[in-house]
Amino acid sequence: MMARTERLQLAGLPVLVQVSEDPKALLLVLHGLKGSKEHILTLLPGYAERGFLLLAFDAPRHGERQGPPPSAKSPRYVEEVYRVALGFKEEALRVAEEAQRRFGLPLFLAGGSLGAFVAHLLLAEGFRPQAVLAFIGSGFPMKLPQGQVVEDPEVLALYEAPPATRGEAYGRVPLLHLHGTKDLLVPLARMEKTLEALSPHYPEGRLARFVEEGAGHTITPLMARVGLAFLEAWLAP
Amino acid sequence: MMARTERLQLAGLPVLVQVSEDPKALLLVLHGLKGSKEHILTLLPGYAERGFLLLAFDAPRHGERQGPPPSAKSPRYVEEVYRVALGFKEEALRVAEEAQRRFGLPLFLAGGSLGAFVAHLLLAEGFRPQAVLAFIGSGFPMKLPQGQVVEDPEVLALYEAPPATRGEAYGRVPLLHLHGTKDLLVPLARMEKTLEALSPHYPEGRLARFVEEGAGHTITPLMARVGLAFLEAWLAP
Repeated sequence: MMARTERLQLAGLPVLVQVSEDPKALLLVLHGLKGSKEHILTLLPGYAERGFLLLAFDAPRHGERQGPPPSAKSPRYVEEVYRVALGFKEEALRVAEEAQRRFGLPLFLAGGSLGAFVAHLLLAEGFRPQAVLAFIGSGFPMKLPQGQVVEDPEVLALYEAPPATRGEAYGRVPLLHLHGTKDLLVPLARMEKTLEALSPHYPEGRLARFVEEGAGHTITPLMARVGLAFLEAWLAP
Repeated sequence: MMARTERLQLAGLPVLVQVSEDPKALLLVLHGLKGSKEHILTLLPGYAERGFLLLAFDAPRHGERQGPPPSAKSPRYVEEVYRVALGFKEEALRVAEEAQRRFGLPLFLAGGSLGAFVAHLLLAEGFRPQAVLAFIGSGFPMKLPQGQVVEDPEVLALYEAPPATRGEAYGRVPLLHLHGTKDLLVPLARMEKTLEALSPHYPEGRLARFVEEGAGHTITPLMARVGLAFLEAWLAP
């Protein structure tokens, strides 16, 4: 039972669909900075075979869309990164809605790095997937490097009220964070701070973390396996 | 494909075997203080169906063996607990050896609470399963409550050189710890200290933890699922 990949158009965007026989649920997958829909799907082997229909599309300024992605050399790098995140979030809402209408299946969500932050944004705004995987990311925006200019009010708002501080809005949606101890881009402490902030708003058994010793800023095969096991716990029996 | 449970005798001990069709590997499961072979097997649903032949037997002074288990009221409670652990460890070695001879399959190991400590003892003594699950336990003996008498030299040795401090002896055997943030019996910090001690002796991707927010001293269904996903990563393809 091999998975096959197809292209389709949802909410006006090109979307990759990876599907096997008889899918039971949708999994919308959001890639990270400098990633692409093609790349993130290669990191989640076995999901389609276990009943998930995977959907991925390129973030603004990424993949086959007009680029380039924000450059760290820009004095507005941080602002540009979070403009991408905010745009990605709006598109994710539209793609998710159209996908659910089209396929009539429950929806799950996964994000890697900046995509994980976007998943937090979605939860903080009341989006309600069945469960969420947040790979190598956090629910706080990155620390502002010196000399960065941030003027955009929507980006400033992310710093004033990061999604992870709005846990009451998450609606107890099951959430698993997956992280490496040697992540130099998103330090483990940022992920742990995220769970600490959310924990008071969650009942037992719906919020968890998987931490892999020695792993860097990368979605490892072990993280992918554990993520799949977590999602399966929230598939209707 | 239902799993069936059978009884057999291994190394002179009654052993419960849970098996489905065509097992690919053995999983020896060590229960905790006041537990039993029957109870621990109920906490690992789905393992047999995914190719593990589960084996469990009662620790000394537990289950159908002559009891009772150590009582917390005894001034030698801690000593008695670790005498049980040391006996359990020796028996586990013999049962594992005989099981591998009988079934000719690779062996995995799982332990809950005191059983997880026994798993650490086994690793520190050079036992080499394919991978290990340590549920709600640690590689350090419990803190000594006031007034406890410990004279047994083997038990004293566990305090002088806890297994987790002998990480070089673990042979990089893949190890996943699973724990709840509200565990009052084995505090999360003890588990984290265990991984901190072992981490220098492990390469990337073989040592990890799963932490469930709000879970107490109990092997939850989510821990069981995640544990199974970890073991599957180390099954020969």
